[in-house]
Amino acid sequence: MAVTIKDVAKLADVAPSTVSRVIANSPRISDRTKEAVREAMNELGYHPNFNARSLANQSTKTIGVVMPNSANKTFQNPFFPEVIRGISSRSHQLEYGLYLSTGQTEDEIFEEVQDMVLGKRVDGIILLYSRVNDKVMNYLHQQKFPFTVIGRPYEPSMTDLTYVNNDNFKAAKTVTEYLLLLGHEKIAFIGGNLDFVVTVDHMEGYRKALTNAGIDLRDEYVVFHEELQEGGQEAVIDLMSLAERPTALIVADDIMTFGVMRMLAEMEMSVPDDVSIISFNNVTISELSSPPMTTVDINIFSLGYEAASCLIDLIHKPGIEPKQVLIPHKMIKRQTCQRLTPKLNEKAK
Amino acid sequence: MAVTIKDVAKLADVAPSTVSRVIANSPRISDRTKEAVREAMNELGYHPNFNARSLANQSTKTIGVVMPNSANKTFQNPFFPEVIRGISSRSHQLEYGLYLSTGQTEDEIFEEVQDMVLGKRVDGIILLYSRVNDKVMNYLHQQKFPFTVIGRPYEPSMTDLTYVNNDNFKAAKTVTEYLLLLGHEKIAFIGGNLDFVVTVDHMEGYRKALTNAGIDLRDEYVVFHEELQEGGQEAVIDLMSLAERPTALIVADDIMTFGVMRMLAEMEMSVPDDVSIISFNNVTISELSSPPMTTVDINIFSLGYEAASCLIDLIHKPGIEPKQVLIPHKMIKRQTCQRLTPKLNEKAK
Repeated sequence: MAVTIKDVAKLADVAPSTVSRVIANSPRISDRTKEAVREAMNELGYHPNFNARSLANQSTKTIGVVMPNSANKTFQNPFFPEVIRGISSRSHQLEYGLYLSTGQTEDEIFEEVQDMVLGKRVDGIILLYSRVNDKVMNYLHQQKFPFTVIGRPYEPSMTDLTYVNNDNFKAAKTVTEYLLLLGHEKIAFIGGNLDFVVTVDHMEGYRKALTNAGIDLRDEYVVFHEELQEGGQEAVIDLMSLAERPTALIVADDIMTFGVMRMLAEMEMSVPDDVSIISFNNVTISELSSPPMTTVDINIFSLGYEAASCLIDLIHKPGIEPKQVLIPHKMIKRQTCQRLTPKLNEKAK
Repeated sequence: MAVTIKDVAKLADVAPSTVSRVIANSPRISDRTKEAVREAMNELGYHPNFNARSLANQSTKTIGVVMPNSANKTFQNPFFPEVIRGISSRSHQLEYGLYLSTGQTEDEIFEEVQDMVLGKRVDGIILLYSRVNDKVMNYLHQQKFPFTVIGRPYEPSMTDLTYVNNDNFKAAKTVTEYLLLLGHEKIAFIGGNLDFVVTVDHMEGYRKALTNAGIDLRDEYVVFHEELQEGGQEAVIDLMSLAERPTALIVADDIMTFGVMRMLAEMEMSVPDDVSIISFNNVTISELSSPPMTTVDINIFSLGYEAASCLIDLIHKPGIEPKQVLIPHKMIKRQTCQRLTPKLNEKAK
C-alpha cells in the first residue's frame, strides 16, 4: 500500500500539515523539525507527489523550451541538440527539469506557450530562436512571464528583454573582411531565412564590410534560403549560373555548407581552388566535410548554458534588471578558403 | 486580480466543487453542466492550474523522454532530434507534452527517472536507447511503470516489454550479403558501442552472412567505437594499417561514416574505387557526403512516432498486452559501393 503524508506525520510525531510544509520547504518550519520529517520520509520510502509539491510551492522547477516549428527538417540541424545540451547541463545543476514544445506550426506553438504560461506548467521559458515580429515573444513580453531568448529581439520596443546572443553582425563583417584580404571581391552571401534576426544581422555585417572596402553590394550575389542542405544546393545553382561567378561564398550555416559543397562537387568545381567558402556555427560534424570547412565557432553549448542561467535568475529574483549576454565567437580556419589567384579572377570574369 | 474557481462557479451558478470536477473531466458531471461551466471559464478568461488538474486527474498528460547520457557529443547525432520529432508529432496529436531528461551521467539519469516515477511527474517514459543490462530499464520494469523502448531489451527476462525496433540483425546481414555479391570478401565491420543492443544485433547479422557464405570472420576486421566521428577515424587507421586491407567497410552510423570518409580522403584513398562503404541510419545529411553514401534508412521518425503511440496506449489501457513493433528498413543505394575489380583485389593482398 502506498505510504501517505499521514504515515510520515505519525512516525515523525508531527501534524500532517507540518509534513506538507516541509515538502514545500516552508521557512516557517524549524530545521530540526524538517530534519525529523525528512528522516521519516526516507525511512518509509515516501516520495512527495510532484504536482502537489508544485501547487504548494507555486513552482514547477521546470523550464519550457520552445523550438521553431519542428514540422520541417530544420530541426535536424545539430545546432538544436547542442543548444539543448547546454540548457540541460545548467538546468540539471540548478535542479530544473525541461519541458519541450511539440507544436509543428506557429499556431500550435503559440497555443502551447499560452498553456504553459496560464496553466503554470513551467516557471519560465527559453525561446531557441528569435524571429522578426514573433507572436510568442510579444505574448511573453506582455504577460511579463519570465523568459529568455537565444538571439536578440528585433523590435526596438523589446530591447528590455533578457537574451543571449552572438555578435552576428561583427562575425559576418569579419569573415567578409577576411575574404577581402585574401583578394576576393566577388563575394556572395547565402543567408538563412530572413524571418530570423540572425539572418538580418549577418546581412548587415556583410554589407558593412563591402561598403567600408568601397565595393558595391550586388543583389544577385545575395541569396536567402531556409537553413537546409536543399537550400544550400539551390543557392549554388543560382550563383554559379551568373555570367560573373563569385569567387568566394559566405554561407549562414554549416549544414547548408555541406549542401553547397556537395553541389559544387557535382559541378566539378573544386574548393578552395575554384571557390572559397566560409561558414557559421562549427557544429561537431563541420570538420568532417572534404575538405574540412572554415567556419565561425559560435559556441552553441554556451548559448544554451547562459540562457538557462539567466532564466533561472529571472525566476528566482523577480524584478531583476534584464540582462544581455554576448557569447564570444571565433573563426576556425580549416581548408576551404584561399588567396584569390589572378588566374581564378580571370576565369570568373 | 486573478480569476478563481469561485468566480467561475458563481457565474455558472454551480458549486465550486462542480467546477473542479469539470476541470478534471469527471464522468459524474452531465454534458450540459460541463458546457455551462466551460462557457463561464471562457467568459472570465479562467485557465485551470496545470498542477491542480494533474492532481485531480491523477494524470500529467506528459511523457518522459530519457536519452543516453548527454555529457558526450553522441547527442549531436541527428538521430536524436529526428526521433524526438517523431515522438513530438504523435504526442502533440494525442495532447501529451514532453519532459526531457537532463542527467549527464548514468547515475544522474537513474535518479531523474526515479523522481519522474515516484513523484508522478510523467505518465509514462520512452527510453531512446537500449543498453545491455540497463539499470533504468530494470527499474521501470520492476516498478511496472508504463514505458516503451526504442530498440529491444537484451535480457530474455524482459521480452515482455513494449518496444519499437528495426530488424537490425537482418539489416546488417543484408548489407553484408550485398557486398559479398559485389565480389567483396574482405569486409570489415565498424560497430558502435558494444553496450548497446543495436551493436550486438549488427554484429550477429554480419557474422551470419559471412558464415553462410563460408567466409571466416577475422577478428582484426571488427572494430568497435562509440558512434562518433572520432571513432570512425580511428577505426580507419586500425583497418588500413593491416597487411591485408579490407576492400569494403560496414559502418554502424552515418556520422561515423563522415569520419571514415574524411580519414580515407586524408590517406588519399578513393571511395568507392579503393574501398566500398555502406552505412546505417540515413540521417538527412547522409546524402551530402562526397560521394553521397549508400546507407540503410531505418525510418527514425517512425521509431519515435510509434514509440509514442504505444506508450500512450499503455497509459490509457493499463494491463494491455505488451506489443513489439518492427519498423521496416530500406537500403538506399547511392555512390559508395561498387563491384570489386580484380585489380583492387590484387592491391589489397
